[in-house]
Amino acid sequence: MNDVNQYMQTLGSQARTAARRLARATTQEKNQALLAMAEEILAQANVIQAANHKDMQAGAKNGLDAALLDRLELNESRIQAMAEGLQQVATLPDPVGEISNLNYRPSGIQVGHMRVPLGVVGIIYESRPNVTADAAALCLKSGNAAILRGGSEAIESNQAIAKCIAAGLRKAGLPDTAVQVVETTDRAAVGAMIQMPEYVDVIVPRGGKGLIERVSKEATVPVIKHLDGVCHVYIDDKADVNKAVDIAYNAKTQRYGTCNTMETLLVAQEIARHVLPVLAEKYQSEGVELRGCEATRAILSGINSASESDWAEEYLAPILAIKVVKDLDEAMEHIHRYSSAHTDAIVTEDYSRARRFLAEIDSSSVMVNASTRFADGFEYGLGAEIGISTDKFHVRGPVGLEGLTSQKYIVLGDGHIRQ
Amino acid sequence: MNDVNQYMQTLGSQARTAARRLARATTQEKNQALLAMAEEILAQANVIQAANHKDMQAGAKNGLDAALLDRLELNESRIQAMAEGLQQVATLPDPVGEISNLNYRPSGIQVGHMRVPLGVVGIIYESRPNVTADAAALCLKSGNAAILRGGSEAIESNQAIAKCIAAGLRKAGLPDTAVQVVETTDRAAVGAMIQMPEYVDVIVPRGGKGLIERVSKEATVPVIKHLDGVCHVYIDDKADVNKAVDIAYNAKTQRYGTCNTMETLLVAQEIARHVLPVLAEKYQSEGVELRGCEATRAILSGINSASESDWAEEYLAPILAIKVVKDLDEAMEHIHRYSSAHTDAIVTEDYSRARRFLAEIDSSSVMVNASTRFADGFEYGLGAEIGISTDKFHVRGPVGLEGLTSQKYIVLGDGHIRQ
Repeated sequence: MNDVNQYMQTLGSQARTAARRLARATTQEKNQALLAMAEEILAQANVIQAANHKDMQAGAKNGLDAALLDRLELNESRIQAMAEGLQQVATLPDPVGEISNLNYRPSGIQVGHMRVPLGVVGIIYESRPNVTADAAALCLKSGNAAILRGGSEAIESNQAIAKCIAAGLRKAGLPDTAVQVVETTDRAAVGAMIQMPEYVDVIVPRGGKGLIERVSKEATVPVIKHLDGVCHVYIDDKADVNKAVDIAYNAKTQRYGTCNTMETLLVAQEIARHVLPVLAEKYQSEGVELRGCEATRAILSGINSASESDWAEEYLAPILAIKVVKDLDEAMEHIHRYSSAHTDAIVTEDYSRARRFLAEIDSSSVMVNASTRFADGFEYGLGAEIGISTDKFHVRGPVGLEGLTSQKYIVLGDGHIRQ
Repeated sequence: MNDVNQYMQTLGSQARTAARRLARATTQEKNQALLAMAEEILAQANVIQAANHKDMQAGAKNGLDAALLDRLELNESRIQAMAEGLQQVATLPDPVGEISNLNYRPSGIQVGHMRVPLGVVGIIYESRPNVTADAAALCLKSGNAAILRGGSEAIESNQAIAKCIAAGLRKAGLPDTAVQVVETTDRAAVGAMIQMPEYVDVIVPRGGKGLIERVSKEATVPVIKHLDGVCHVYIDDKADVNKAVDIAYNAKTQRYGTCNTMETLLVAQEIARHVLPVLAEKYQSEGVELRGCEATRAILSGINSASESDWAEEYLAPILAIKVVKDLDEAMEHIHRYSSAHTDAIVTEDYSRARRFLAEIDSSSVMVNASTRFADGFEYGLGAEIGISTDKFHVRGPVGLEGLTSQKYIVLGDGHIRQ
């Protein structure tokens, strides 16, 4: 325990020193490092695969289920994708140093904002080893040093990738301590990392709810966290039926296991009779289990009954809760009560209702006539995402490079003094 | 203890409900409330003064020192100023609902940001009762519900002001629970308030270092905090001597007790001989005690010697530490080591050095050729400030209305689904 703490303190201190160098790294240096990392990953593909093979064998021996083993696996195309991810981050605009709103004040000084890195970013993640490269790339491009703590089941893969990252940093003349991958699988490392505010400026946990809750609870460092995605689509009685059917079908069935998948469908009572039978047929042909309120079951006979707990559930599975509501107000009331404030959408052709929904629904993404599945850093044009924040503080929704930065004030004068 | 917790939970729950109404309050409603509060404060000036008189008497009896009693006092002109502060916030632009960067994506959806309130803001402050009105105004205008916890020494004054605030809210048709002033002086109320994330979205402590450290340490809610102001001015050898003297003199002597006052002066060795004697004479005529490094004392004979602890000290008094440095790099190294990252300034005519200082100094305000005393919400054009953040997360530097808001994503489509 003491050794792990000591080890994490050393990583922290090294990261803090590297962060200062990274904060003033030029865009060119950072891009060179990213491209060199990608090259190294491609050159070392065999070494990475061999390391991954060890993890896969250990995983199988330890009884990891098929889904986890799939997430753990690094085949040739995934290694290729990892390298492409690094190259793609190199093409993104550098957020650091951006000066905005530089205006003259009555006193004669010019005041503006300059975008700056946060400092040291700690990332805690599970199974997928490609996160090691993705997270390193986003932290580096945003001028932050990174401490990465992957899952113990991916330790060999992560160490192999870490070597490529370090080599890329050195080639660009940047300190290889700018990205450090924790080498111990001791769980105490997580505890140490989230409680050293002197060395870590923000923690991003990426993984299951258990991990995120533990980190949020115990951290003395700010956390960018992503909890549930209980997302809603509300079909208003002024909706275009075709759009409503397309969106509600897509939001549920395009992928089941993602956080931006619709979990509850709300339908205005006046239109329920027109859309529900069409939708039910489509859902059922895909094998989606429907669970409805009383009014829903009066229209769709034979489906299961939704209980109170269904409204709050993130199924991440081919199950959908359906509720018929009186109007927009009842729909918003339901969303206010049960939504996890991740992503909620309205389908309507009514201008005023669309405007109210946008203003009044307090979720990280609020949509009109679009599928909730669009709530994603790539779809939003962030280039890449380090996660999705369901918090309001600092950053909300998909988090890209900008979410890993802050802004300082700059003041330009010409000998100005305060009167 | 249990009663206080119960009471704070009730305030929290009421604030959460009011926050929802406030989030959709129109600009007109919020401004009407602000103006009605101001009217009420002027109409009730006698009542407020009578309440303040009780606090002053109790304070004198409890042995408050003259400075604290002065901060506690509400005379006619201070009550007038409080009302004017409310009126002024009414003239500020409403940050809520602002839509920015709404752009089309290749998929056809439009994605943008909408500015939204944080929700419920808790403010913990000491002695000055005018903060009650200031804080209420900023929270209200930014669409947030507020829970205000003033010092026990100002309880009568704060309650009198609270009544005016509540009356103003009611006149504008807004819930009077939108701004709640804690009625108990039990210190357990602070502990309860900073540990109810279900009801409070952010805490702003305004007061001495002890209060802020306690709140930061114990809070389970995000804190916008302001610790020390150990501010530097570095006079580069390429400085214009007149500007350097004006700025260094102003930054120290314009006010001693403020956080943006210079505490350490750094001077490049090549110019030290030209500026230090002139400056020393000016400082000494104001009674400022100078504490210098060896090189400084070789130029200014007879001044005190600065010890290691002087470099880290926020004097808030007519004392100045002076250090002669070799060059910009040594100056930045010193600032990096000792600055509290509040405000640091360079005086130079050299373009590249000014640019390096702006980019590399990691403080909430970084200045070129201007006095550190400008680091202030009013001077920066924020209209008003709720405090200054020395953190990097969420908001940095003077915090105005925008610092009390967040941004959500909005997505506009026309039946768009994800492929």
